[in-house]
Amino acid sequence: MSAKSLAEKLLAGNRRALGRAITLVESTRTDAGLQKDQLLQTIMPRTGQSVRLGISGSPGVGKSTFIESVGSKLIEQGYKLAILAIDPSSPKTKGSILGDKTRMQDLAADQRCFIRPSPAGRSLGGVARRTRESILLCEAAGYNFIIVETVGVGQSEVAVAGMVDQFIYLQLPNSGDDLQGIKKGIIELADSILINKADSDHLNAAKRSKVDLELALNLLYKNNTVEKPKVQLVSAKEKTGIDTFLDEVFEKITALKDKGDFSHRRSQQAIEWFKSEVSELVLETVSAKKAFRENYLTLEKEVESMTLSPTTAAKQFIGTIGI
Amino acid sequence: MSAKSLAEKLLAGNRRALGRAITLVESTRTDAGLQKDQLLQTIMPRTGQSVRLGISGSPGVGKSTFIESVGSKLIEQGYKLAILAIDPSSPKTKGSILGDKTRMQDLAADQRCFIRPSPAGRSLGGVARRTRESILLCEAAGYNFIIVETVGVGQSEVAVAGMVDQFIYLQLPNSGDDLQGIKKGIIELADSILINKADSDHLNAAKRSKVDLELALNLLYKNNTVEKPKVQLVSAKEKTGIDTFLDEVFEKITALKDKGDFSHRRSQQAIEWFKSEVSELVLETVSAKKAFRENYLTLEKEVESMTLSPTTAAKQFIGTIGI
Repeated sequence: MSAKSLAEKLLAGNRRALGRAITLVESTRTDAGLQKDQLLQTIMPRTGQSVRLGISGSPGVGKSTFIESVGSKLIEQGYKLAILAIDPSSPKTKGSILGDKTRMQDLAADQRCFIRPSPAGRSLGGVARRTRESILLCEAAGYNFIIVETVGVGQSEVAVAGMVDQFIYLQLPNSGDDLQGIKKGIIELADSILINKADSDHLNAAKRSKVDLELALNLLYKNNTVEKPKVQLVSAKEKTGIDTFLDEVFEKITALKDKGDFSHRRSQQAIEWFKSEVSELVLETVSAKKAFRENYLTLEKEVESMTLSPTTAAKQFIGTIGI
Repeated sequence: MSAKSLAEKLLAGNRRALGRAITLVESTRTDAGLQKDQLLQTIMPRTGQSVRLGISGSPGVGKSTFIESVGSKLIEQGYKLAILAIDPSSPKTKGSILGDKTRMQDLAADQRCFIRPSPAGRSLGGVARRTRESILLCEAAGYNFIIVETVGVGQSEVAVAGMVDQFIYLQLPNSGDDLQGIKKGIIELADSILINKADSDHLNAAKRSKVDLELALNLLYKNNTVEKPKVQLVSAKEKTGIDTFLDEVFEKITALKDKGDFSHRRSQQAIEWFKSEVSELVLETVSAKKAFRENYLTLEKEVESMTLSPTTAAKQFIGTIGI
């Protein structure tokens, strides 16, 4: 199918066209490049208007159940929902962690919801790039609420936080986990921290956890003008706290739009994306040169044996690769 | 002075030559480049054998007094000590925070100690590069114990931790500060956390702080095979805990050398340095091209107005700059 007719079907809201379009942007085939660019170019004017929510949390914290609860509420309210996943660990596990569609059975069966598992076998940079483009495709296909899910691994949270409007960290009622989140610097990225499983069996533990976490946050944000993340109790299973959570998400989006900050933020995110894409492409292009591959290892050996200083070696190297 | 005669004087342990050599590597004059490379090349075989210690901590925590206490012990033991500073905040404060030699009066007056304040007005990348080269110059001049000091700001700790054998975090007896360190991810870099001012007035607070911090670390490192940082009490003012601290530093170095890991680590650090230097130089060289400057802003504007997707714009851009 040509990029033009794929774009037409996509803009008409065709689900299969959306699936094919995402497969196209995920493709690493070099001959897919031109088609990909034409497609993105055609749909650009119809992108950027959805609410984008990032959700992170360690495996086992109940992300799927939580997304099911949030998702069914959104669909009831008339939203068209798309769920994308970033999982840099998937190359190891063959994409199984977030790739398993059976995790969200109700949503998977609903035609108003589009679920796309994480592509496996890529670097985080590659996965992040494809996810950003997939967000644009979903928006062009008429999806006006996008959830980007990630497991709490490495730098994927930073990537997701940079492409969404609000970033949510889900955790269990357990003080060890509280500190894990703080330790990994995720708490700093989060707009909200939700303590899940605040239901019949674990309500008291969850309440204690909330008190502990708020105490820790008060200390961390002492003398700090940055807004602290808000701590809330939810139960994805018993569907409590979900309405309050969603009301606040929409309140924040409305406040952003009222101040005129919403489109500005989208533009700034696009500029950041362009900048990092340029750096990555420069390094990719230069390292693919024959001279690069030939000379790098030779100089690295000299550096390793401490016969050449790293800065001198780097300067010599740059001189030989013809840029 | 030619690079050759400067190198000769430096290798003979001449302090003025060391000062001039550091000024040379700090120079941004393009005509200094060749001389710099010749100098580094000549001294390389005489580098890499010192003990390198990184020390971080917020302003006011007592780093200067601590370094004076540690430094005078080292000099008593016959070490030749060099103290270098990385302070990415210095461009703002004109280098005053770590640039003030009067901070360490006893050491500054001692001919067996060489103190070099942080160069002001540079990017962290630039400052880190110059500090790495200054370490090599100090080693070549016969200094066999190097302390690299940094304030607890941004990424400077990561840079310092990557160039030393052991990284020390100094803090006050105050649980807010404990959490600050954890929040900023510094604790993860630290081999030791020292609680300073554990003296007559603050001993009880310091002891409580140690208990709290060890409790937090136990939680953080639960199910983790990585070695936890060790928490120790010191008083830089009353010079308590300094001997124990130094004994452990040397024990660890001896253990590394006995296992043959010391030189391997030096080589790995050099390779990492080479790699990051190559990336930086590639990006610097490419962004200095005329076509880069001319085309970047045009495309950035299109990205900002959301008429061009960031990936498409980046690809178009790379096509125009001739690499």
